[in-house]
Amino acid sequence: MSLHNEIMEQAAVLENLVKNQWGAVQKIAEDIRKHDIDYVFLAARGTSDNAGRYAQYLWGIYNQLPIALAAPSLFSLYQMPPRLKNALVVGISQSGMSPDIVSVLKEAKRQGCLSVAILNTPESPMGEAVSHVLDISAGIEIAVAATKTYTAELMAIAMLSAALRQDEDAYQTLKKVPGWVAAMLDQDAALGRIAERYRYMDQCVVLGRGFNYSTAFEWSLKMKELCYVAAEPYSSADFLHGPVAVVSQGYPVMAVVPDGKVADGILELLRSLRKERNAELFVFSNRADALDLAQSRVALPADMPEWVSPIVSIVPAQLFAYHLTRVKGYDTENPHGLHKVTETK
Amino acid sequence: MSLHNEIMEQAAVLENLVKNQWGAVQKIAEDIRKHDIDYVFLAARGTSDNAGRYAQYLWGIYNQLPIALAAPSLFSLYQMPPRLKNALVVGISQSGMSPDIVSVLKEAKRQGCLSVAILNTPESPMGEAVSHVLDISAGIEIAVAATKTYTAELMAIAMLSAALRQDEDAYQTLKKVPGWVAAMLDQDAALGRIAERYRYMDQCVVLGRGFNYSTAFEWSLKMKELCYVAAEPYSSADFLHGPVAVVSQGYPVMAVVPDGKVADGILELLRSLRKERNAELFVFSNRADALDLAQSRVALPADMPEWVSPIVSIVPAQLFAYHLTRVKGYDTENPHGLHKVTETK
Repeated sequence: MSLHNEIMEQAAVLENLVKNQWGAVQKIAEDIRKHDIDYVFLAARGTSDNAGRYAQYLWGIYNQLPIALAAPSLFSLYQMPPRLKNALVVGISQSGMSPDIVSVLKEAKRQGCLSVAILNTPESPMGEAVSHVLDISAGIEIAVAATKTYTAELMAIAMLSAALRQDEDAYQTLKKVPGWVAAMLDQDAALGRIAERYRYMDQCVVLGRGFNYSTAFEWSLKMKELCYVAAEPYSSADFLHGPVAVVSQGYPVMAVVPDGKVADGILELLRSLRKERNAELFVFSNRADALDLAQSRVALPADMPEWVSPIVSIVPAQLFAYHLTRVKGYDTENPHGLHKVTETK
Repeated sequence: MSLHNEIMEQAAVLENLVKNQWGAVQKIAEDIRKHDIDYVFLAARGTSDNAGRYAQYLWGIYNQLPIALAAPSLFSLYQMPPRLKNALVVGISQSGMSPDIVSVLKEAKRQGCLSVAILNTPESPMGEAVSHVLDISAGIEIAVAATKTYTAELMAIAMLSAALRQDEDAYQTLKKVPGWVAAMLDQDAALGRIAERYRYMDQCVVLGRGFNYSTAFEWSLKMKELCYVAAEPYSSADFLHGPVAVVSQGYPVMAVVPDGKVADGILELLRSLRKERNAELFVFSNRADALDLAQSRVALPADMPEWVSPIVSIVPAQLFAYHLTRVKGYDTENPHGLHKVTETK
């Protein structure tokens, strides 16, 4: 089972990355600091796009960098790329192959922009098109559903943030992440039992906000591509602007609620979903009040700061999606009609 | 029925806007051209956020402006706003009241940025915080589900694009939009009949790409907030990176396929969904080959350019959502637990 093996490898992959690539990341950061950067222009698809959502919050909050998410079709189909003056152009990809992302990076080069590719395959069309490659060094990923490359992309994003602000304390915190991930991997059997309850679930929503907006998207994507569940991700704020209407008695709502700035707001929403709509709640949290609200729960590490929590909190979601796929009788290695590299134009 | 009335008012609202606000829009554009703008930083929620997706493509392609979509929680909850150097900051809102969007515009002012608010309520906290107000003049909107303010926001975005590049031909094209919208309103009874077929639909996907990525999101949102259908929007490219796995025999797929740069790609995807997965297709298009593929269809105006098509193609989607709400026996005026102004922080 490649998928399960790759999920279980993550503590080791992250430990290797955080230790062995720190020097390389610091050099990239040094070059970025020499340039006059007004904003980041970011191109990615699928799982890597979800990693980009983490960058939007992390680099926004700790590096004061606004992030524009590229619409790759402007470059590939419409062939009318925007002016990228004073932009740092960043591409994120497991394979380094997606033609539309390559077209964004080539245009960045044509316009003379500084560019970075966060890649698992440095020797690839994307690697060749950029000023700097940040190698996530996750090893070959065989399963169609990306897992270890996602957490490694998040770690690379977090390392670059720490290096840009030359924050040694942040780097020390990142070195604790593999241990927290290992604690989540220990929940494997428990998540197998929880998955039984969701055998007949065919739709749900997944809530996260701030740093864990990324987790809501990635958890949803794993349930869609592996379990064929119509899982829809929301920020708890956007959810109130309309979509909350779909929640009726017993409707499954998953939520990622690490202690921090956004927890109180999500908690208030979960309380009203439970009380007024009798929703079914599945919660990941390190707060007792959030866990107590839920029918199903995973306790996140107690001492984990909110800004690194996306790297840790996606791990039980991956395990849940893996087990739910098996409980539903589907094939974890060959999701219907998906390929490892999707060549969108 | 406020909702149906407001949908049917749209041709008149757009005709008024395009004629009476052109002078004001040209003055805003003149001031923007005097500034050294590297990119647009855009803040909106819900339906107005979908209007922002149109701006991302239109201003990207025709004005070469990269668009960063603001994460309002960076300003409100985390209180760590990014540096907005050389940004044009744009807020879009029906009410002008959402506290988190107001906090983005206030921060823009503090940082000395040029800012524009696209509003239906010029006298509002958002209107007071910005350099320029672009008044969409849609009249009071009573229904909780926004319809005429959405198409008016799109028109305002398109007028600003034309004014920024001083393109009189584009303005002449915009003057034809109310007529195309009127042709879509004539499909009211036909959409009532089509809605019958979807009485028991509880989930679906909505595909659009490029300019109509916005339409996919807004059509989905109307079905979620009015019909309680778990409708999920995708660009046809992102859809292939995983979510396509949910489509099995008879699964409903809605698609917006106006003739233009992205049509061939979506058409190829629809053909494979029909042939390999036996999906149920509901297509809006002005191409015979796209309409022929579908079980349900709406013919879009033949001579409508792709760049204005989002203003026109959302109209049959609004009518469909209205009729489906009634067919399902729900209340079109009072969706469960929604309010006209959602005060997210």
